[in-house]
Amino acid sequence: MALNTLQDLLVEELKDTYSSETQIAKALPKMAQAATSPQLKAAFEKHLVETQNQVKRLETIFQQLGESPEGNDCEATEGLVKEGEELMGEQADPQVLDAGLIAAAQKVEHYEIASYGTLATWATELGHTQIADLLKQTLNEEKTTDEALTALAESRINSAAE
Amino acid sequence: MALNTLQDLLVEELKDTYSSETQIAKALPKMAQAATSPQLKAAFEKHLVETQNQVKRLETIFQQLGESPEGNDCEATEGLVKEGEELMGEQADPQVLDAGLIAAAQKVEHYEIASYGTLATWATELGHTQIADLLKQTLNEEKTTDEALTALAESRINSAAE
Repeated sequence: MALNTLQDLLVEELKDTYSSETQIAKALPKMAQAATSPQLKAAFEKHLVETQNQVKRLETIFQQLGESPEGNDCEATEGLVKEGEELMGEQADPQVLDAGLIAAAQKVEHYEIASYGTLATWATELGHTQIADLLKQTLNEEKTTDEALTALAESRINSAAE
Repeated sequence: MALNTLQDLLVEELKDTYSSETQIAKALPKMAQAATSPQLKAAFEKHLVETQNQVKRLETIFQQLGESPEGNDCEATEGLVKEGEELMGEQADPQVLDAGLIAAAQKVEHYEIASYGTLATWATELGHTQIADLLKQTLNEEKTTDEALTALAESRINSAAE
């Protein structure tokens, strides 16, 4: 594949992000099941619904661009998901596991914040205003999820894990 | 390995981050070489020096904890680095490649922001005040690097790549 224009790069990055979101949608139910804290379970379940909606939003964007969402495997997300799975496979105190799950989820959120920040910038520069708005909606959801996880980490779960 | 306490989890996460930083220190010279924009080259070279210092900071932390930094391979960083290498292997317009390199670097920065944010919170909660201060120093450096990359992306390089 040749990357001759910023549009080419935008489409590649969108495909990467689509692969990332579909992997995350598969990982979140396992993380919700592994979590002990009801608040953390609820946060993962809420974010699963959001993620499914974000996948649909990306499909809308691909339709508008006349491109297919398939064709990329996001290897960074594969690594992130694998680290989460390894954590869930460890022998761990339940509250320590919760702290680790929050950390794993925040790495995923930050990966997505970087991705959607980039995508929204490129879409804006290319004049795809409507697409940029959709990408910014998702960006804001990821930021809100990250903040909610920080609040959970700082308030209850880590104190209990000491 | 058993994760019985938050201290166990802190040490595991520190090992993961040590693996991550050493991988990034190897990747940055290649990214600096691949970049076309002198500002981007300079940003990668500056961050290489910072990263080498961050590795030393982590070694100080391991010494203070009486632990070894070895033993983890950070698979998420492996995926991030592999994605950057794939990008550098593509046939690409130089300015489009620069835009892609900035995006790849910002994903790495966000990974590290999430990691050091978590580490600093846990170190504080465990009463490791001095270690928490070292971790916050690195966290601030990563945030500053991310902001500098955003400024580069928004101002010059993406406009040129259109």
